[in-house]
Amino acid sequence: VSDFKEVGETIKKSKRVLLTSHENPDGDAIGSMLGLGLGLESLGKEVFLYNKDGVPSHLEFLPGSDRVRSALDSIPGVFDSTLIVDCTDVGRVGEGFQDELGSGRFGTSIIIDHHQTRKPSADLHLLVPDASATGEIVYFLLRCLSVELTKDVATNLFAAILSDTGSFQYSNTTPQALRVAAELVELGASPAEISQAIYENEPLRKIRLLALSIETLEVAEDGRIASLVVAKDMLDRTGASRADTEGFVNIPRSIKGVEVALVFRQEGDALWKVSLRSKGKVNVASLAENFGGGGHERAAGCTLSGELGDVKRRLYSKIKEALCWKA
Amino acid sequence: VSDFKEVGETIKKSKRVLLTSHENPDGDAIGSMLGLGLGLESLGKEVFLYNKDGVPSHLEFLPGSDRVRSALDSIPGVFDSTLIVDCTDVGRVGEGFQDELGSGRFGTSIIIDHHQTRKPSADLHLLVPDASATGEIVYFLLRCLSVELTKDVATNLFAAILSDTGSFQYSNTTPQALRVAAELVELGASPAEISQAIYENEPLRKIRLLALSIETLEVAEDGRIASLVVAKDMLDRTGASRADTEGFVNIPRSIKGVEVALVFRQEGDALWKVSLRSKGKVNVASLAENFGGGGHERAAGCTLSGELGDVKRRLYSKIKEALCWKA
Repeated sequence: VSDFKEVGETIKKSKRVLLTSHENPDGDAIGSMLGLGLGLESLGKEVFLYNKDGVPSHLEFLPGSDRVRSALDSIPGVFDSTLIVDCTDVGRVGEGFQDELGSGRFGTSIIIDHHQTRKPSADLHLLVPDASATGEIVYFLLRCLSVELTKDVATNLFAAILSDTGSFQYSNTTPQALRVAAELVELGASPAEISQAIYENEPLRKIRLLALSIETLEVAEDGRIASLVVAKDMLDRTGASRADTEGFVNIPRSIKGVEVALVFRQEGDALWKVSLRSKGKVNVASLAENFGGGGHERAAGCTLSGELGDVKRRLYSKIKEALCWKA
Repeated sequence: VSDFKEVGETIKKSKRVLLTSHENPDGDAIGSMLGLGLGLESLGKEVFLYNKDGVPSHLEFLPGSDRVRSALDSIPGVFDSTLIVDCTDVGRVGEGFQDELGSGRFGTSIIIDHHQTRKPSADLHLLVPDASATGEIVYFLLRCLSVELTKDVATNLFAAILSDTGSFQYSNTTPQALRVAAELVELGASPAEISQAIYENEPLRKIRLLALSIETLEVAEDGRIASLVVAKDMLDRTGASRADTEGFVNIPRSIKGVEVALVFRQEGDALWKVSLRSKGKVNVASLAENFGGGGHERAAGCTLSGELGDVKRRLYSKIKEALCWKA
């Protein structure tokens, strides 16, 4: 469903361009949007950047991040094209955006993404599922458009690839992802500065929350299941938000012998959002589907209602079943 | 002080080769030793591997690790050459090794390392300070020797580079380090499997120790200093060892605004080993030198005696002084 040639030509012809990405944006969403935006500006285009939720604080160091607006209303006029990066579903850009897309204001809509999709929803598509990150696609797109890559562009694209490969640790870390990263470092991206900005900028309240949550560490099934709990009163006591629990599941996952790691986050008195991670033996996506959730084979989530002990029992019994069939 | 040509020729002529590295070995020490050893074997050489402390458990997955012996006595005969990797000081190979080196049993001694040194202590030297890891030097050395790199060799060398660049996050992450990593993945190294084996194999007791230690989190100087304490009774209660505190300093370091992170580890009733990490504004090596310690600009250590409160006061006052001169 990709239209490589048309995408390039449509961008070349566009004078006024809007760039956006999915809500609750991550490093790849922001990094690839900013990298592409700065690159297109150097071609003389008038570039506008929009993300419904703005730029998360740990990504504010990225060059150009101050240009991102979180209200579409504040961006006037019509656009020749609208580039939606790292997002196959225009419904995830933000409320109302999808309806407005057809209004003519946004020109030709173009989705640029490395995620697989069966029903792309824009006018044109640049989909490269083999790419480690959307940032990697943007790198090649800018090269195709003969954009000279500056240090600022390189920094954004390196941050995008670093984020989506989990610092080159996930299975999407291809030779090409590493080679593009090498080029970006040559162009001025600093791995140390970018990693520090992204990974060493946690709010203190998050570490205080972790201190409370880590006390709940529990291992079960001969050490093959490990879990943490984040109860509502922990959020209250530390002033932390639900978003601050991101990454907590890496603590139980880091333990030797653990196959499935879980975090139980209390959403209501008897409502629990569960994050699941697998080291490979158990498909946690299909496990989560039993409870109306979903995700990927190694990272999934679902929401269960009931008392914590009961919620655990129901989940653990499914995990035990899955582990039975594995050496 | 490097003798590139002679090193290559001496290795080519050698039939029986001993490989070793520094005590308390890390991923680069073991990975580059195993990668080089397996590579030389494919050239028909008889290869023996020695490390005084053996292979740490999180590196036992590396191909060839079962071949490493921790007693020199168990390896009979004489060697044509002895390759000491990731170690500029033969005194760090293990007690007695240095004295025996001159005995003739070890043949030509060759140091292969990426660390700087002023007084290399072997017969020949292959020192490349620009290399991210000794594993990167071994990659080029094997290429020079026309060794065909197998998946097992690639896995060892990728693990070496991954370890010494902190998963491509430290400032030694050069374009060349990333390009060599790309080649190694092409040759069969799996970033996901290697990262999981190295970073997700923590003993449970270590996480239990972290749970106790993280409660002691303290921030000072407007959030610019953060510290953890590991008291002796925490080790007793969890059955953890001193080595299990490795990486704890990353927790206070991960906090936004923190410039200097510290871990105080109790070595005796009134004796504290201090790990210091800087995000760049403070040179912790010179700071540690005030107390008889040392290290690098961003990672250093020292040992102080006294009550914890007193030890903290002495250190913090020096850090405050250093921070005064920084924006």
